[in-house]
Amino acid sequence: MIKHSATLAINERLQAKRAAGEQVLHLGFGEAGLPVLPEVRDVLANAAHRNEYGSVVGSAEARQAAAGYFTRRGLPTDADDVVLAPGSKALLFGVLAVLPGDLVLPQPSWVSYAAQAALVGKRVLGVAVPEAAGGVPDPEVLDRELTRARKDGAEPGVLILTVPDNPTGTLADAALVKDVCAVAANHGLTVLSDEIYRDLVHDSTAVHSPATELPERTIVTAGLSKNMALGGYRIGFARVPRPDVRAALVGVASEVWSSLPAPMQEVATYVLGEPPEVRAHIDASRALHGAVARAVHAEFTAAGATCRPPRAGFYLYPDLEPLRSKGFRTSTQLAEHLLDHHGVGVLAGSEFGDDPGALRFRAATSLLYGADAEQRRTALRSADPVTLPWIQRSLTHLRDALAAVFDGK
Amino acid sequence: MIKHSATLAINERLQAKRAAGEQVLHLGFGEAGLPVLPEVRDVLANAAHRNEYGSVVGSAEARQAAAGYFTRRGLPTDADDVVLAPGSKALLFGVLAVLPGDLVLPQPSWVSYAAQAALVGKRVLGVAVPEAAGGVPDPEVLDRELTRARKDGAEPGVLILTVPDNPTGTLADAALVKDVCAVAANHGLTVLSDEIYRDLVHDSTAVHSPATELPERTIVTAGLSKNMALGGYRIGFARVPRPDVRAALVGVASEVWSSLPAPMQEVATYVLGEPPEVRAHIDASRALHGAVARAVHAEFTAAGATCRPPRAGFYLYPDLEPLRSKGFRTSTQLAEHLLDHHGVGVLAGSEFGDDPGALRFRAATSLLYGADAEQRRTALRSADPVTLPWIQRSLTHLRDALAAVFDGK
Repeated sequence: MIKHSATLAINERLQAKRAAGEQVLHLGFGEAGLPVLPEVRDVLANAAHRNEYGSVVGSAEARQAAAGYFTRRGLPTDADDVVLAPGSKALLFGVLAVLPGDLVLPQPSWVSYAAQAALVGKRVLGVAVPEAAGGVPDPEVLDRELTRARKDGAEPGVLILTVPDNPTGTLADAALVKDVCAVAANHGLTVLSDEIYRDLVHDSTAVHSPATELPERTIVTAGLSKNMALGGYRIGFARVPRPDVRAALVGVASEVWSSLPAPMQEVATYVLGEPPEVRAHIDASRALHGAVARAVHAEFTAAGATCRPPRAGFYLYPDLEPLRSKGFRTSTQLAEHLLDHHGVGVLAGSEFGDDPGALRFRAATSLLYGADAEQRRTALRSADPVTLPWIQRSLTHLRDALAAVFDGK
Repeated sequence: MIKHSATLAINERLQAKRAAGEQVLHLGFGEAGLPVLPEVRDVLANAAHRNEYGSVVGSAEARQAAAGYFTRRGLPTDADDVVLAPGSKALLFGVLAVLPGDLVLPQPSWVSYAAQAALVGKRVLGVAVPEAAGGVPDPEVLDRELTRARKDGAEPGVLILTVPDNPTGTLADAALVKDVCAVAANHGLTVLSDEIYRDLVHDSTAVHSPATELPERTIVTAGLSKNMALGGYRIGFARVPRPDVRAALVGVASEVWSSLPAPMQEVATYVLGEPPEVRAHIDASRALHGAVARAVHAEFTAAGATCRPPRAGFYLYPDLEPLRSKGFRTSTQLAEHLLDHHGVGVLAGSEFGDDPGALRFRAATSLLYGADAEQRRTALRSADPVTLPWIQRSLTHLRDALAAVFDGK
């Protein structure tokens, strides 16, 4: 049985604790934690008359806008290459359902990839990420593991890359992407590149997409949940240049979700057209994500954890190996302890396919911006959001909790 | 490979013909063909700030409202039994993905059931529907076929019933549902009852749900696409009393579509609360669907077809067997001829799993209400919509086309 997605499950658990009056530091969920841009609200409101089923692939306007989005990012794209759906998660599922072969995953990687693979009957081959960045397997280890897996009778067919990465909050640079893609091509793999965080690189370094290296062999998925904080709108889109894969994906889409809701197609058209107010909103969000992620990173390293510096999005993936001497043996045990004794909610590394015995977890930093829309708007507008009292209180909560566990409490 | 859903495909094909200036009689697509109730538009507009991911099963309010909807229809339901999703199609897929065993289907039945079964690796056992009504297999034939199938090594596990039915536009009465459920229980099947047309029984006869007969063994799916003409909103909901099935379904949901979009949860809450204006809208829609379906039915029977009288929704499933003497050999050939030579778009019976050699097809009557929202609103308010000039023109188009094919042209 496929269990309830770990990220969604911890969110529901933490919301229940909070509703019960507990003081909770919610680092467990990858929601962008920001209000809807008012212009987006207006677009949705004005599209409320749209009740027709519409095309499975998405409206012509939305596909054109998505093609422009990719093209402006160095990936020339025709509107015909685009498929929209209710969330990039649905697209990832659909692509995994139609591509042959087993799934190769960076370790750690987002919780749903492996669960989706199980759902469509694919085996998973996990390959450790390099020190430089997560979201891609170490190229040398990848080459070795693929060779060994084939000898053992596996049929690796699809490699998922996450650029920038969830859970590590890092960005594989061009050279690393190039090396990984060369190995993938050598072994005949199709690359599925999840680029949902691509607009949130803190210093605005351009993302080097695997689609640049392997244009015919790469499918790119993205969405508006992270860059525009529209998780609840469920808008995803994909760049699928191969017509056979696209046709197969559309077949699955037509039998599982039919289409992105018609009013949401208009939101996609508007946002992906990237008018100035959308770009300004994403710029402000990116700055806030970076500032808070860096502040939380500083708390972890000061406490004694090792942690890759955050480069994109709103995640950290600290390693608390020194706590082994305090009796911690698994990431799950550590995460449960943090939740039960210190009200700190994180997601154990094992949920991401990491070695269960490694004392690593993912900390999402995006729910620290405020308890309501007003606080979040203030954080978004602030030149120095980390100094805001409610963010300071969260940092203090984390500092105290970490001090206590490192102290053996 | 799962091909693009036949219903969605013919819709796209007919829209293209129409866009090219051809005179087209669109009987090919099961869209309710009516405008959004203004109050629903307002609810969606006012919910546009809702960008949180939300619970996989649906918001507490929407689940409570859906529980009330079922309870008022004679199926006592707890909010905890309800799962919402972006469309009942997604829920049907999810349930099929988690229930064990092969799929037993009435023949003919809605195009997506068999396609979904293929997607999740289930074999399909088709059982002919009785003369009385479609949507359920003939109980005696069902019993015989299940026994034979088991002997042949099949493992029938799930029986889908469609009450009221698509494609026949009929309603299995209580006695028939009872008989079918008794056979299903005898053979240990779980029943998946698709009740998306339950509010559109033309004479308001209460639907006898299989869940009344087999409360623990039946999962009911429904949605707002048909009764409220909100296909483009993608709002589905299910009644899943068995906790183990519900947990498994939620697992799939969390890995494929996450949740119904947050703004749509508010629409679901509002509509399923059934305030007077919603009930009045559905009442008016039901009357219009019935009037036009009866008028189209009269055209088919006058031309020489046999056809079950329409009882619910907006479908007819005529049998044009007399045309065999004119050289027609398959439903596909007949449907293609009607489209190419007479601009009449219908969906061949073979798409619904019917005998390909039978000269049957589904005619959807709901796109005859008007070419734009104003005409559709007029039809909805009309005491005698069939007399409206644009509906008369469509009936004439159909009459001429049928006269020509029965004439061997």
